[in-house]
Amino acid sequence: MARDTAQAAVALGGGHGLFATLSALRRLHDDLTIDDLTAVVTVADNGGSSGRLRGEFGVLPPGDLRMALAALCGDDEWGRTWADVLQHRFAGQGEMNGHVVGNLLIVGLWELMGEPVRALDWVGRLLGAHGRVLPMATTPMDITARVRGADEADPEAVTVVRGQVEVATTGGRIESVALVPEDPQACAEAVDAILAAEWVVLGPGSWFSSVIPHLMVPGLRRALAETAGRLVVVLNLEAQVGETTGFGPADHLAVLFEHAPDLTVHAVVVDSSAIADDQARLEKDVADRGARLVVADIAVPGEPRHDPDRLAEAFRQVVDEA
Amino acid sequence: MARDTAQAAVALGGGHGLFATLSALRRLHDDLTIDDLTAVVTVADNGGSSGRLRGEFGVLPPGDLRMALAALCGDDEWGRTWADVLQHRFAGQGEMNGHVVGNLLIVGLWELMGEPVRALDWVGRLLGAHGRVLPMATTPMDITARVRGADEADPEAVTVVRGQVEVATTGGRIESVALVPEDPQACAEAVDAILAAEWVVLGPGSWFSSVIPHLMVPGLRRALAETAGRLVVVLNLEAQVGETTGFGPADHLAVLFEHAPDLTVHAVVVDSSAIADDQARLEKDVADRGARLVVADIAVPGEPRHDPDRLAEAFRQVVDEA
Repeated sequence: MARDTAQAAVALGGGHGLFATLSALRRLHDDLTIDDLTAVVTVADNGGSSGRLRGEFGVLPPGDLRMALAALCGDDEWGRTWADVLQHRFAGQGEMNGHVVGNLLIVGLWELMGEPVRALDWVGRLLGAHGRVLPMATTPMDITARVRGADEADPEAVTVVRGQVEVATTGGRIESVALVPEDPQACAEAVDAILAAEWVVLGPGSWFSSVIPHLMVPGLRRALAETAGRLVVVLNLEAQVGETTGFGPADHLAVLFEHAPDLTVHAVVVDSSAIADDQARLEKDVADRGARLVVADIAVPGEPRHDPDRLAEAFRQVVDEA
Repeated sequence: MARDTAQAAVALGGGHGLFATLSALRRLHDDLTIDDLTAVVTVADNGGSSGRLRGEFGVLPPGDLRMALAALCGDDEWGRTWADVLQHRFAGQGEMNGHVVGNLLIVGLWELMGEPVRALDWVGRLLGAHGRVLPMATTPMDITARVRGADEADPEAVTVVRGQVEVATTGGRIESVALVPEDPQACAEAVDAILAAEWVVLGPGSWFSSVIPHLMVPGLRRALAETAGRLVVVLNLEAQVGETTGFGPADHLAVLFEHAPDLTVHAVVVDSSAIADDQARLEKDVADRGARLVVADIAVPGEPRHDPDRLAEAFRQVVDEA
């Protein structure tokens, strides 16, 4: 039924995980399974080029937005060339070292236009993007994490770590994350996109610092509760040292529900090789939530990253069987 | 006769002066008097954003190239918006202070593509530019000036000053300028454009640091000697403190010929209010070179800058009466 009419999809995430999701979803966009594609991007980054620009200008961190735009670039020489330019990172030993051309372009547009979404739409037009890229909120924020065992002298002590970089590289075990401010204003266009979507995809990505933060923005959480769209969770291929050390697929899903107990999930997509030790628990947890477990080969063989074509095939399966 | 067939024009210069020339010539391009417009830009800047990028990456200074591209931007919202973005200069107190978005974009393209001209053509395509912008040479260079009286203790002593910024702000009187290296490789596409042009426009602009340097590049000098195109010199509206303190129009023309005694000039364009004290000498000097003096109101009334519409009218007069 699904392919009879094209549908709208929203992908929530950040960084390389969102890049993978968008690279897959644009294939469904190209064949008209999805006719309207929106990325909603975390804006809590405080490291690298983004962190420097955020510190200097008080703007949203542009890096994850830029990466999502590049994932959606046009298929022709024009789109690919400008995507390459926007993704170019300056080397050398000087003040520009580590800055990324697209980050600087986006901040320039923000300064000039004063409207974050309008400026991002202009970058999308430059790239001939197959979809729209929005920030999850209109002001920058920080992530904080309650971490157990970060202090070696007292492994049971819980400390609070602040900053996406600090959360992603903590030595302890993260128990929960929160946002500062705790109730950031959701981007209105992102809320509208979620409410209008048939499909909402959450993950993969840095679980505590790029995926769960979306659930902590009250406006997005409300939109996820109200939308008639179906939520698809894509689990990570492996644990990330620091942020999710020792996590299997079922652990990823469990902390998601700890942060959003009322979340209604339609399907959980997991790679067949990642599931091995965890299968029985994951099957039970997914079934308990009334969701469907989709086990598929979605990784690049031998590498810890998602293959866009295989992930697209998994999305197609979910959409077709809805 | 001139308007029966469209013609090619090349403008040589740099900075705000070249911006003015191009803003005028694009009007002749829009009405098809000129069907092929090329800017050839000095690449000796060592100050500001350009100087910092040149120092950090060893690239051509991008600023004057970026400004020329902006002057040629498309007339629609697309072209004007991207020109505004490229011209945007970061404020603030951090490491980006003073950098210009377009400079960073151009350097990114250069790093990515490794071919300066190809990269500039891509920026031209982005802007929907009404013409092409080329560097005068393919490697950065320095300007040196022999300056008399820079040392207050010995007003007759001649010293050598190096660097565009240092030349433009010298306290002494510039006697001559030269380039380091003294025989930079001319940009091949710039040579071809000059050889193919019906019209070559030199000036206005910072006389010693943006206009005369073109004549010191052997390949451009040869092209100017060999082309069948007619050379039009546009004189400055006033002296620039430092670089040309006390210069009238005839002084500007005189130092041009001191640096290029064999230069064949078709017409010299001067503002009617700038000429006042200098008229008889200028008329004689222009006539002695077999050139035509065009006196016209080409300034914005009361301001020391050229009015694009009025300068365009003066160019039309020169072209129509050829």
